[in-house]
Amino acid sequence: MNIERLQQQIQFIVEIDKLKSVLRRSYLADNSRRENTAEHTWHLTVMAMVLVEHANEPIDLLRVLKMLVVHDIVEIDADDTFCYDEVGALSKADREGRAADRIFDLLPSEQAVELRDLWEEFEQRATDEAKFAAALDRLIPLIHNYNTEGRSWREHGITHLQVLKRNLHIGEGSESLWEFAQILINEAVEKKHLPVA
Amino acid sequence: MNIERLQQQIQFIVEIDKLKSVLRRSYLADNSRRENTAEHTWHLTVMAMVLVEHANEPIDLLRVLKMLVVHDIVEIDADDTFCYDEVGALSKADREGRAADRIFDLLPSEQAVELRDLWEEFEQRATDEAKFAAALDRLIPLIHNYNTEGRSWREHGITHLQVLKRNLHIGEGSESLWEFAQILINEAVEKKHLPVA
Repeated sequence: MNIERLQQQIQFIVEIDKLKSVLRRSYLADNSRRENTAEHTWHLTVMAMVLVEHANEPIDLLRVLKMLVVHDIVEIDADDTFCYDEVGALSKADREGRAADRIFDLLPSEQAVELRDLWEEFEQRATDEAKFAAALDRLIPLIHNYNTEGRSWREHGITHLQVLKRNLHIGEGSESLWEFAQILINEAVEKKHLPVA
Repeated sequence: MNIERLQQQIQFIVEIDKLKSVLRRSYLADNSRRENTAEHTWHLTVMAMVLVEHANEPIDLLRVLKMLVVHDIVEIDADDTFCYDEVGALSKADREGRAADRIFDLLPSEQAVELRDLWEEFEQRATDEAKFAAALDRLIPLIHNYNTEGRSWREHGITHLQVLKRNLHIGEGSESLWEFAQILINEAVEKKHLPVA
């Protein structure tokens, strides 16, 4: 056993415990509290396993799972940027890039590179795997909002048009899931949980 | 798109949101609150990615990740059984078996079988992948206890011998991680965070 290497890995594992304290804007399905980013990430990994057949292209599930597992770790330093926060979006890449430098570099160097590459692949949405992973990451807040009478949308004054614009890229990963997302969005509008303007 | 099939899958995905409300005996590394099972599961998936080189045998990481992602879903109905709870352990298999029947059966039938098989593989610890996944599941509470001055051990009157006995099987998945675990355990005893008897 290379104890020094293992200790570096364990230090990273202890550091990322902090992701359990990063709060998102979404509420749990039972409306009891806001969701944290660690449990959100677990939810996405189950979705990837169960929904992989709906990807537009045949994809490598291992790659999708690895990408999802690490995709939000940067929020430990950069915090969660609400997906409708246009001001926060301006500084997001910079804040998250610095976070990635600090956190992934706790690992042995070749692992730091591997995890950073996975995070960047997710962010760039250029590969089929990243497009599908990002589609899931957009779909789950829609499902949460649908199940909590649009609570997070209403709290932040989000409109139908913003939701459509922000979630359009679900279709790049999965046409079927985008079709399904539009059903949820339309029902939310009909039920007045999502204002048209 | 087969909407009926997709709706079954989404129903499962919404149902398992409840895992975020199942509390474990472990505390977060910053000692702020008890950990829930969903965020614990995410933590294990990162560990699998980062520590896979320490497995005793060459293993299939995709299989390990899939197994970890689903291994605690039964706790939604069966609740978390504290690993030192000998009374709870007597009814654990029965409670969890019924939970698996109800929850996995929300999925289309062949997916229900796949996820149940993964859960059973984890429980039985017969394959190299299951042995490694189970080793991680035992290692992380040790790390949490080590980082919180043995808080969960002390709250439940757990002794050195119980910890050794309960965690011995880490070695079946990874001799290196078991060696490391014993270093943590011995240090905890020295610091009087874990009583000898």
